[in-house]
Amino acid sequence: MATWATLDCSATQLADLLGPNSTGAAHFICDQIAGVSTKLSDTAYAVDTTYLLFSAYLVFSMQLGFAMLCAGSVRAKNTMNIMLTNVLDAAAGGLFYYLFGFAFAFGGPSNGFIGHHFFGLSKVPSATGFDYSHFLYQWAFAIAAAGITSGSIAERTQFVAYLIYSSFLTGFVYPVVSHWFWSVDGWASAGNTANLLFGTGVIDFAGSGMVHMVGGIAGLWGAFIESPRMGRFDHSGRAVALRGHSASLVVLGTFLLWFGWYGFNPGSFTKILSPYGSSGSYYGMWSAVGRTAVTTTLAGCTAAPTTLFGKRILSGHWNVTDVCNGLLGGFAAITAGCSVVEPWAAIVCGFIAAIVLISCNKLAEKLKYDDPLEAAQLHGGCGAWGIIFTALFATEKYVNEVYPGKEGRPYGLFMGGGGKLLGAHLIQIVVIIGWVSATMGPLFFVLHKLKLLRISAEDEMAGMDLTRHGGFAYVYHDDEDSEKPNVIQLRKVVEPNTSSTPPSV
Amino acid sequence: MATWATLDCSATQLADLLGPNSTGAAHFICDQIAGVSTKLSDTAYAVDTTYLLFSAYLVFSMQLGFAMLCAGSVRAKNTMNIMLTNVLDAAAGGLFYYLFGFAFAFGGPSNGFIGHHFFGLSKVPSATGFDYSHFLYQWAFAIAAAGITSGSIAERTQFVAYLIYSSFLTGFVYPVVSHWFWSVDGWASAGNTANLLFGTGVIDFAGSGMVHMVGGIAGLWGAFIESPRMGRFDHSGRAVALRGHSASLVVLGTFLLWFGWYGFNPGSFTKILSPYGSSGSYYGMWSAVGRTAVTTTLAGCTAAPTTLFGKRILSGHWNVTDVCNGLLGGFAAITAGCSVVEPWAAIVCGFIAAIVLISCNKLAEKLKYDDPLEAAQLHGGCGAWGIIFTALFATEKYVNEVYPGKEGRPYGLFMGGGGKLLGAHLIQIVVIIGWVSATMGPLFFVLHKLKLLRISAEDEMAGMDLTRHGGFAYVYHDDEDSEKPNVIQLRKVVEPNTSSTPPSV
Amino acid sequence: MATWATLDCSATQLADLLGPNSTGAAHFICDQIAGVSTKLSDTAYAVDTTYLLFSAYLVFSMQLGFAMLCAGSVRAKNTMNIMLTNVLDAAAGGLFYYLFGFAFAFGGPSNGFIGHHFFGLSKVPSATGFDYSHFLYQWAFAIAAAGITSGSIAERTQFVAYLIYSSFLTGFVYPVVSHWFWSVDGWASAGNTANLLFGTGVIDFAGSGMVHMVGGIAGLWGAFIESPRMGRFDHSGRAVALRGHSASLVVLGTFLLWFGWYGFNPGSFTKILSPYGSSGSYYGMWSAVGRTAVTTTLAGCTAAPTTLFGKRILSGHWNVTDVCNGLLGGFAAITAGCSVVEPWAAIVCGFIAAIVLISCNKLAEKLKYDDPLEAAQLHGGCGAWGIIFTALFATEKYVNEVYPGKEGRPYGLFMGGGGKLLGAHLIQIVVIIGWVSATMGPLFFVLHKLKLLRISAEDEMAGMDLTRHGGFAYVYHDDEDSEKPNVIQLRKVVEPNTSSTPPSV
Repeated sequence: MATWATLDCSATQLADLLGPNSTGAAHFICDQIAGVSTKLSDTAYAVDTTYLLFSAYLVFSMQLGFAMLCAGSVRAKNTMNIMLTNVLDAAAGGLFYYLFGFAFAFGGPSNGFIGHHFFGLSKVPSATGFDYSHFLYQWAFAIAAAGITSGSIAERTQFVAYLIYSSFLTGFVYPVVSHWFWSVDGWASAGNTANLLFGTGVIDFAGSGMVHMVGGIAGLWGAFIESPRMGRFDHSGRAVALRGHSASLVVLGTFLLWFGWYGFNPGSFTKILSPYGSSGSYYGMWSAVGRTAVTTTLAGCTAAPTTLFGKRILSGHWNVTDVCNGLLGGFAAITAGCSVVEPWAAIVCGFIAAIVLISCNKLAEKLKYDDPLEAAQLHGGCGAWGIIFTALFATEKYVNEVYPGKEGRPYGLFMGGGGKLLGAHLIQIVVIIGWVSATMGPLFFVLHKLKLLRISAEDEMAGMDLTRHGGFAYVYHDDEDSEKPNVIQLRKVVEPNTSSTPPSV
Repeated sequence: MATWATLDCSATQLADLLGPNSTGAAHFICDQIAGVSTKLSDTAYAVDTTYLLFSAYLVFSMQLGFAMLCAGSVRAKNTMNIMLTNVLDAAAGGLFYYLFGFAFAFGGPSNGFIGHHFFGLSKVPSATGFDYSHFLYQWAFAIAAAGITSGSIAERTQFVAYLIYSSFLTGFVYPVVSHWFWSVDGWASAGNTANLLFGTGVIDFAGSGMVHMVGGIAGLWGAFIESPRMGRFDHSGRAVALRGHSASLVVLGTFLLWFGWYGFNPGSFTKILSPYGSSGSYYGMWSAVGRTAVTTTLAGCTAAPTTLFGKRILSGHWNVTDVCNGLLGGFAAITAGCSVVEPWAAIVCGFIAAIVLISCNKLAEKLKYDDPLEAAQLHGGCGAWGIIFTALFATEKYVNEVYPGKEGRPYGLFMGGGGKLLGAHLIQIVVIIGWVSATMGPLFFVLHKLKLLRISAEDEMAGMDLTRHGGFAYVYHDDEDSEKPNVIQLRKVVEPNTSSTPPSV
Repeated sequence: MATWATLDCSATQLADLLGPNSTGAAHFICDQIAGVSTKLSDTAYAVDTTYLLFSAYLVFSMQLGFAMLCAGSVRAKNTMNIMLTNVLDAAAGGLFYYLFGFAFAFGGPSNGFIGHHFFGLSKVPSATGFDYSHFLYQWAFAIAAAGITSGSIAERTQFVAYLIYSSFLTGFVYPVVSHWFWSVDGWASAGNTANLLFGTGVIDFAGSGMVHMVGGIAGLWGAFIESPRMGRFDHSGRAVALRGHSASLVVLGTFLLWFGWYGFNPGSFTKILSPYGSSGSYYGMWSAVGRTAVTTTLAGCTAAPTTLFGKRILSGHWNVTDVCNGLLGGFAAITAGCSVVEPWAAIVCGFIAAIVLISCNKLAEKLKYDDPLEAAQLHGGCGAWGIIFTALFATEKYVNEVYPGKEGRPYGLFMGGGGKLLGAHLIQIVVIIGWVSATMGPLFFVLHKLKLLRISAEDEMAGMDLTRHGGFAYVYHDDEDSEKPNVIQLRKVVEPNTSSTPPSV
């Protein structure tokens, strides 16, 4: 029975009130009320599941958003390669998350470090109110992390390397982190009932840290170990923009991510039918869900024009892809605190996220770090800012509503809630950087040493689509030669290295 | 408490029935019923909010639809420009609507002309059942209006002019109109409890007038003041089609708008859990919501093939972009009456909408009016038809269900409901044209006089993407010269006016 | 009243328990409970309608997915043609399904072969709990079938032929099949209360047979009668790949179909608020809905990498479009059994679906069958596998929950449920092939004989967009000649056959 649905009708008490010989009547009446109660419970399950499933579908649509954003941001010759990685993030990620990932993340009861039940979803439905739709929702999150990373190392990574790191990230690295901060057993979870880190735990509501920083830091290591794409920095060391091949795909992807973020952030409540305070007043989780959608919106809405004007001053033109990245940076930042801050604070969050992104990009250029999607800067940098932001601006009221059952818990430093939350959040940043570096760093390094990481210079010049994926992604002109478009198309772009060469991988 | 949830259990009455000494028992029992009542209320809030939020997300997805439709409908050289305006409609629009717009529109209690509460969403949640999710829903509507206008003036408008008019439209012009017709305080609102215009008020359920005509009339003034794009009419005055660069993007955008329209029209109920007649029968708002989805579908489904055959006769070929526009014209028209007409009437609506659109396009060509998206014709023309259509075909039954609490109100002229509704709707058309002309007309005129409206002839020839937005939207061939694709790309298209020229705006 | 909502409170019984002179009180109390019951019923309608409508919107989004998948899979010169067919599938399909289709499919009470009520949706709302939102949901399914067929005959079919077969398929052929297997009156429906075929009926939950096989077999006949596209097989009979023009559109379409499939499969429950077993326990339809989303996901997630590695071995490269088709094949296969199998079985389903698809494609090539979208292979072949799969792996528990009210019904052969379900399912395959062949085969043949089916060789060389649809879908370079881009564009591709030739159709 959903706890909300309980109505306590004591037959004994009612019998006393009704007078002598009324036990039967009292039981009859209380049984009726109990019948109502079970139906209210049914209703709650149906409403909450509807809410959760459609949120999961929205989060899934972000994978399409990533695919289009990535495709548009790389050069035409590597489009099929990056899109294939995005399709496989979702597909292979689904298998790995089903087999291990979900168990590592949420397979409780367990220790604070890693879960160990529900492998292959076995015995899941017996767990009250936590079954298939939760798996689906969490899977959609897991594949987002891998999608972020594939952006950082785009246009120069062997496909086999991609298959290896992606499985490892979705099946192990990400699930463990999500266990720490989101599972009720997690050592730093704000929902841990036994023992709260610093009396507060980490409030990373929808995953600025768990998803965005994890994906971004993994990407950082990959891109760093691979070194920049050919031609990204010229002989004198100056950065050269290697522009993506389609701004339309970038905008399409960005809007789809925005759309999907409404599943990501407000959806992270995972249910909606729960009153705050007494039943029957307007105020409840439904209101908090709406507020979360609004803070999410406002953070992105602020970051976009901030980036527009910032980049106008720096570069002299109005750049749509920069605005798209700024927007996404605002979303990545608000993701941690979206449910516990006021709308006005979301504007602060987005404003600074834009500045963080611009600064990280400047720094990356200086350090000759090449990330075709700015993924480490955006998801890593703005994600980290979001974690700090939450520790500064979380309000007492919202923190207690969203993480109930423990009065007097710390909240945002600037809102008068002390520094404990900030302490916990700084620890989160450190352990995420540490864990991802300790797992993904060596993995990329070993792949590098085994010569499985970076493609050959010839492949990079020709583009991976031709040499590894069977042809160019686009064929706009197929006039009278339509019988053999591949060959024609191939010749146009690269002469010596035809697809008849046996691929090495 | 949601009024629907109230169960009236009178303990006094029950005590009388139970006999002497039963006051305690009666209170006990009625308290149980009251407990059920509050939980039903919780349920209603959760269900209605779920419905409203997901509808809002759908309406938001229309912004993506607009972006793709606009992008595909302009020439490749102006793609980034138009997409940037679409992104900013949503983003900057979010800020302005948060700061002022929502307050002007729904900040009641207020006068009939303009609202004045809830600036920056302050004190909103205290309003019972009208909070964040409503704001989100209304914001998604507000940005649609600005999106329409940007289509009319595409390919020749300075970016700074766009920033100015868009803020003004989303933050002031549109909110005021929506106050008049949708706020319970609005002077012409069908929901005004104090005083109904002509005893009926205006039934513009989802905004054929408020959104589509407002956006279309604003676009009309902009496009008229700017005059046509270079080459749109040749030296002898004949129209020359300046074809959009991608039919795929047009179809993508159209389908996304169709998808989103299910949030726009059925979503405009803003809730779904409300019986019509007595509780427990099948008939309720849920059925009306479904019917609204069906009328919406049928109007578009009729307009599309009507346009197909109409244009086949006129132009000799089967034109997909014309069919897309016809479809959207059908949707824009049914938007006003979607909840109060029978499905068969929606077919009439769509059929005539297609004819209206074809006629408006003929007229525009004759008048040498150039609107790259046909936005004034489609949203203005078909929107106006939709307002009249509603006044002719609204049924008595549906009008009373959707706008309850005032029996005997007027309905559609052709359905025997008299001419009062038509009178009110003609007034709506007049005041919308008047208000938008009185605000947006002067604004565009001043921008024009200040030389802030239209771009230079050189910029127009080269395309705004190159001269203002940092490059061409597409780079399909980046062979061995990938180190400096911009320069190559620039040269290909325009020689003298390189991006090194300092931009004037 | 929704049956679930009934609470049986007997006033007579309560009066007996309360003692003498308590009839009034008993009625009072039971009336209160009855009031609760009606409100629970309202809630169920609202929740179920919300669930159904948003599922319908998702299924509709598959039409966009089809459009993009088809567009990307054909050559650029036929893009507008195929997209126009996709738009019209939805639009004209809406009209035909409204006028006849829905009546033929669900117009009960009727005989087992065809329905005959609700033409033009007349008198529909009187049917309890089965009205507008059901129509919308079923319409979205109907148009999917026609969309599948248009893929098979792409790039060589006259537009008028398309208009004819599409109306016939959506308005008659598909509705009749869906009546047989989905209507409660259908002769082979698993929900038929009077008489179950082989004591079981056919369990084709979301339509591997009704939608996918129907569309695929229709396409098979069309493509077979038309014979292959020019150049598809060279003079020595070897297959030549006629690559689609945009892998980005293929991936976009595939992800949208994936997204929409969450409406197609889990949505096929058509409601969500229904407990399995006793009320108030966690276990109910909501859980089954989630499980269905998971089995759907896992089947696709398995088929994709299976295809990846399978094609890697066969062709030597990592092919993204093949992976997309494999993924969709997995979805088409799981569609029949998604609600009645365990997640692990979905993995078996997807694995074999990939093998079926690869084999069907090999066979098609051998037989010189040309299907630009592999639609017959994918939807026909994998659809048929899905029907058999269900008969092998359906579990006893899930079959009884999803098709309740008749204990002891047969289930999957491999799960110990005997061979009756397999028998019924083999009959389903036979009758679908028979019915579609007997209706669509002659239709295509007559069109062929009347010379209305295939376009001329000149049109095929030039591409239908130029000769029939007013121009090429893309115009990327419109430099100084922007006044007459059509002419320029036309010349580039085809010289002799300009658009001034009066079109024959």
